[in-house]
Amino acid sequence: MGSVWSGKSLKLSLFGESHGACVGCVLDGFPAGMKPDFEAIAAELARRRPGGGLASQRRETDAAEVLSGLYDGFTTGAPICPVIRNEDARPKDYEACDIPRPGHADYTQRARYGNRHDARGGGHLSGRLTAPLVFAGALAKQALAVRAIEVYGRVAGVGGVEDEPLARQLDDRNAWNALKQKPVAVFSDDAASKMEAAILAARGEGDSLGGIVEAAAFGLPVGWGSPIFDNVESRIAALLFAIPGVKGVSFGAAALSKQKGSEANDAFTPVNGEVRHASNNAGGVNGGITNGMPLVVRAEFRPTPSIAKPQASVDLSKNEAARLKIQGRHDPCIALRAVAVVEACAALGLLDLALEMEGTHGWL
Amino acid sequence: MGSVWSGKSLKLSLFGESHGACVGCVLDGFPAGMKPDFEAIAAELARRRPGGGLASQRRETDAAEVLSGLYDGFTTGAPICPVIRNEDARPKDYEACDIPRPGHADYTQRARYGNRHDARGGGHLSGRLTAPLVFAGALAKQALAVRAIEVYGRVAGVGGVEDEPLARQLDDRNAWNALKQKPVAVFSDDAASKMEAAILAARGEGDSLGGIVEAAAFGLPVGWGSPIFDNVESRIAALLFAIPGVKGVSFGAAALSKQKGSEANDAFTPVNGEVRHASNNAGGVNGGITNGMPLVVRAEFRPTPSIAKPQASVDLSKNEAARLKIQGRHDPCIALRAVAVVEACAALGLLDLALEMEGTHGWL
Amino acid sequence: MGSVWSGKSLKLSLFGESHGACVGCVLDGFPAGMKPDFEAIAAELARRRPGGGLASQRRETDAAEVLSGLYDGFTTGAPICPVIRNEDARPKDYEACDIPRPGHADYTQRARYGNRHDARGGGHLSGRLTAPLVFAGALAKQALAVRAIEVYGRVAGVGGVEDEPLARQLDDRNAWNALKQKPVAVFSDDAASKMEAAILAARGEGDSLGGIVEAAAFGLPVGWGSPIFDNVESRIAALLFAIPGVKGVSFGAAALSKQKGSEANDAFTPVNGEVRHASNNAGGVNGGITNGMPLVVRAEFRPTPSIAKPQASVDLSKNEAARLKIQGRHDPCIALRAVAVVEACAALGLLDLALEMEGTHGWL
Amino acid sequence: MGSVWSGKSLKLSLFGESHGACVGCVLDGFPAGMKPDFEAIAAELARRRPGGGLASQRRETDAAEVLSGLYDGFTTGAPICPVIRNEDARPKDYEACDIPRPGHADYTQRARYGNRHDARGGGHLSGRLTAPLVFAGALAKQALAVRAIEVYGRVAGVGGVEDEPLARQLDDRNAWNALKQKPVAVFSDDAASKMEAAILAARGEGDSLGGIVEAAAFGLPVGWGSPIFDNVESRIAALLFAIPGVKGVSFGAAALSKQKGSEANDAFTPVNGEVRHASNNAGGVNGGITNGMPLVVRAEFRPTPSIAKPQASVDLSKNEAARLKIQGRHDPCIALRAVAVVEACAALGLLDLALEMEGTHGWL
Repeated sequence: MGSVWSGKSLKLSLFGESHGACVGCVLDGFPAGMKPDFEAIAAELARRRPGGGLASQRRETDAAEVLSGLYDGFTTGAPICPVIRNEDARPKDYEACDIPRPGHADYTQRARYGNRHDARGGGHLSGRLTAPLVFAGALAKQALAVRAIEVYGRVAGVGGVEDEPLARQLDDRNAWNALKQKPVAVFSDDAASKMEAAILAARGEGDSLGGIVEAAAFGLPVGWGSPIFDNVESRIAALLFAIPGVKGVSFGAAALSKQKGSEANDAFTPVNGEVRHASNNAGGVNGGITNGMPLVVRAEFRPTPSIAKPQASVDLSKNEAARLKIQGRHDPCIALRAVAVVEACAALGLLDLALEMEGTHGWL
Repeated sequence: MGSVWSGKSLKLSLFGESHGACVGCVLDGFPAGMKPDFEAIAAELARRRPGGGLASQRRETDAAEVLSGLYDGFTTGAPICPVIRNEDARPKDYEACDIPRPGHADYTQRARYGNRHDARGGGHLSGRLTAPLVFAGALAKQALAVRAIEVYGRVAGVGGVEDEPLARQLDDRNAWNALKQKPVAVFSDDAASKMEAAILAARGEGDSLGGIVEAAAFGLPVGWGSPIFDNVESRIAALLFAIPGVKGVSFGAAALSKQKGSEANDAFTPVNGEVRHASNNAGGVNGGITNGMPLVVRAEFRPTPSIAKPQASVDLSKNEAARLKIQGRHDPCIALRAVAVVEACAALGLLDLALEMEGTHGWL
Repeated sequence: MGSVWSGKSLKLSLFGESHGACVGCVLDGFPAGMKPDFEAIAAELARRRPGGGLASQRRETDAAEVLSGLYDGFTTGAPICPVIRNEDARPKDYEACDIPRPGHADYTQRARYGNRHDARGGGHLSGRLTAPLVFAGALAKQALAVRAIEVYGRVAGVGGVEDEPLARQLDDRNAWNALKQKPVAVFSDDAASKMEAAILAARGEGDSLGGIVEAAAFGLPVGWGSPIFDNVESRIAALLFAIPGVKGVSFGAAALSKQKGSEANDAFTPVNGEVRHASNNAGGVNGGITNGMPLVVRAEFRPTPSIAKPQASVDLSKNEAARLKIQGRHDPCIALRAVAVVEACAALGLLDLALEMEGTHGWL
Repeated sequence: MGSVWSGKSLKLSLFGESHGACVGCVLDGFPAGMKPDFEAIAAELARRRPGGGLASQRRETDAAEVLSGLYDGFTTGAPICPVIRNEDARPKDYEACDIPRPGHADYTQRARYGNRHDARGGGHLSGRLTAPLVFAGALAKQALAVRAIEVYGRVAGVGGVEDEPLARQLDDRNAWNALKQKPVAVFSDDAASKMEAAILAARGEGDSLGGIVEAAAFGLPVGWGSPIFDNVESRIAALLFAIPGVKGVSFGAAALSKQKGSEANDAFTPVNGEVRHASNNAGGVNGGITNGMPLVVRAEFRPTPSIAKPQASVDLSKNEAARLKIQGRHDPCIALRAVAVVEACAALGLLDLALEMEGTHGWL
């Protein structure tokens, strides 16, 4: 497959399967000399872990064993390999794999890799692979924090219900941190209630909902990025489209394409001898280079394709129509658990950018 | 800068400046043995060329000299280098470059590359660099045509006015080809009129509009793409975000994140012993791999930042507030000319995928 | 670090440390549908395993646990992650790591990655990392065998003693296979005896010897490789220089630079309607592209830097001269165990080439 | 083809053909803010230009037109595209291209790219493509000079005649610079005379000689390079093997593989509180990381395959044996002109390493 992300300095190699022995990754190029906060990493993993009334009922502790790259508790500069064992795999749920699940990669993966691919729950293309991604992203966040850069995320919309718009001055770290304790990570409690209700209703109908996750990064300096092709947006977007279910990525103000130039342009104002932007419609990026304002990026998730409702499919072995009733334990709205994943991708992309700009010589 | 696109098989190296001697590219990895249709290439370049009532008044013939890679009229396998001379450069228009234009890369490029960067009309980060991109894309289209793959594009929206939805069975090549003759490439004549009116109104106010360009690729087989990271969507999206002004990229049905799973899933049906999809909400991609349906991708363009209306900026040399009235010749809605560019990026990404797959498709 | 090899289709991510928990790798891009022969893999690992009178006394079984990428005994197309636990690590041997070992990476690794790097026995830069490389190479050999391509290796020289020259018609698979059973993998028994004697003498003096390992690949078709930069030689050489101790790589006849053109040119002769080469001075590569003759490549190894003889060094913490007497268990001539490693690198490079070519070979 | 070198920060895209319109390149990632010394670049080009009694009689001025990347005489950070027109192309010399020249890429290029490849004098795979490589390398040298790093080269051997060994303390810039004025760039006048005589004798016999070119880089700090795979040696070697005719690359003392460990290890000595090496057998690199000593690398060139002596070949169109008498103007020993090319490759590799280590943010 193509499961190595090749940043300019960082490389991330994902491995494992949903119902195999484990999932894991190798993160290469991470700076030496950092003492990872493993409690913080576990907290990030907990944010995307299944369980709870709004998510899949699969039970995983997601405890990671780090096989390499640490010595005396510090990163050494060598590749870091965390492994997360699968504890609640149920491969039996996926035996009838001759009937591909609509909206999933079952059919396409078989066409691409043949009958020998691991079809159990999506195999290597399962959302479970986002667990090691979150681990790597948590490390990236800690390395960014040393650089005074912070990455946050929220659910911006679920099934048409939207959280309040991101006020351009919303640089309130406490508010963002508070989201991590909420079952649905939105600012507006009213929106949260409506989203929860919509999700439970969809689950009740054996259905699912899509959603939008928005991440924001604070503390970025002006002047990062290497256009034309190695621009900030291409790099972050490529990472985000690797998350299962993401079908759209956008930067800056929502619906920017519907604005006029006079509205969309972020005017410059001098403040105490520094250049400031009066607004952040560009989402922190102009011409593919950071402009000093917070990076704002949205990932749109399609509704979870695994639904309880019966669906029309085909039996590939018999070459005839088949009805499919999906077993297994699934999320009615993957966007909720995806906040940590979107943040992880943003953090990895930004740390890679930081290392490109700073250079990799030396250590933390 | 980072102006080399590194596909798996194709590499594209862009060079040149908006008001320098020329723009051009080197396309490496293109298959040997093809006789390019240069009239077709010129026609593609004409689609994005400035001029006309709805576009910039810069006069360029965009005639390309091919410096390498051809012999006896055929591609040889060696890198192909087209050069397009700038004939109507007016660098004098850009002398006051200490006052960065809001929404442009002026400020960020200076922060990234210093005072010696070429600031005249954006320099290397100008939209003019999309001319060689279209040249390369036109070659890619011809190589795809040999594989019975065709790429089309349209304007899906301008400043809030939308073309009719893309009917899922809209596989009518004549209809798509007819768009190339229209001043605004939309299916609905009514929408076209409204868009034109909106653009002329914006221009009249010294303002500009954003828009959405949609491309569709027909003839793709099932089973192309290399997830997790080298999936189809990440690769196409990364190319599209390299186009100046693109702030969002999405695949499949518009507003997919607002659908329910039961709506969004494309059911399978057997038709004459083959697997078909009853709909195309996924835009031709599941799990990062093509599913045999047309690829559908949208690029959202911000409104052109260059507007005639005076704007607030700063004088970087004096470190004080400044009013800016942009001179030069600019597009009131870049999306119109961008259709050929979006198609070019899609074609380059798909040809790269084709070349990868013709090797690794299937299995041992 | 930079421990991901990025071939065109294959990626290999190495992880682990000499005296940490384990060493391992992730091999991405490997074809689906192959049933690995694990006994053959174990046999390859055994060829480079320490032990015996001519090698390090470290005791490792080098048993690999495969964490991912297999299902029902077949490769699935997903990344393959073998982990080899360290069973005989003795980190205590390396406590005095403020005194860098001459010829090793101790001093340079510290300068590059700081005091927090894992200095125990070279850490991640130890020769022990060649164990997962051999595992990956063994898989590559099996995938090449399906394509009727075989890779062999021998010790071509040790401390100035040379094996007999590689006769150009030496396409005798039995002879090559027989080398795998010998303590020193050379064709000439006389040379073997002299090499053994030289090695034992060096060990007796607390010293070490360098050597040359030569690999040959049979069955390659004509027309593989992508010059100028992605030529066959650059790709194989880059892999070989990643092996600790390799200081030179050359292709074709030894001392080719001392020949005349009329000697070095491999004349063409038609044989039964096919083009043949009358000799193989080019080592199977012309202009960076395979010519249909066996690929012949040599890797020159410096003498093992770890020697028992006392050496002059510095105490980096005190900034003063120090005498160093290296503890630990070391190889008097690393070239002997390196045959399997050189073959592994050649096999990985060639499989990557095969996967590229099966796609882009030929023309439109 | 694969004619883009992808360094970590620098990318170099070569284009053009030996008997086409021109040769050229695009150098991307070069730092902004440098004022290139074009006289120095022309002097570098002159060092590899054909002409003189010991080289090909092709007459080229090798004057370069720079199409992009400069403004007001300074680099801007944008890609730099120099084009060198072919002035003395004689494609007629190459019409009988159905008879491949032994030792050349004629046969392999045809197998790889088909009958439509440009076979005239090797087409894109000609040594003429080293002209733009030298241009790019000359720029790299100037950027390295700002960092107090200098790259020099010499002919170390021709057809078995060797220059004097590189004394380890040979850090005499004047001596190295003086080589640039000599017809054969060797330190020993005696060796120079013997080499000249040998070359003229070979030419007289319609034959050619191989040779060895050695480059040394002074001023490198300790701690550059990213092992395991992105180590210094792999990166430099991959560049050097892209030069036509190079069949071997080695670092450090010649014949290191024949030394003992006690001889080869470079002892450390403290000098005024700094760590010094007492010798430079490692050629400035340990464990793939620079050790602060001069980098020493050798490239072995096979004898020029184009010789006047008649040779045995095949007529590919008739599938029968053919005698070939090569026309055209050729070098009796390519190593002489290759000194500037080897230096260029080393300089490009080292500047890329510098930019990785330093970071690319900001400008010169």
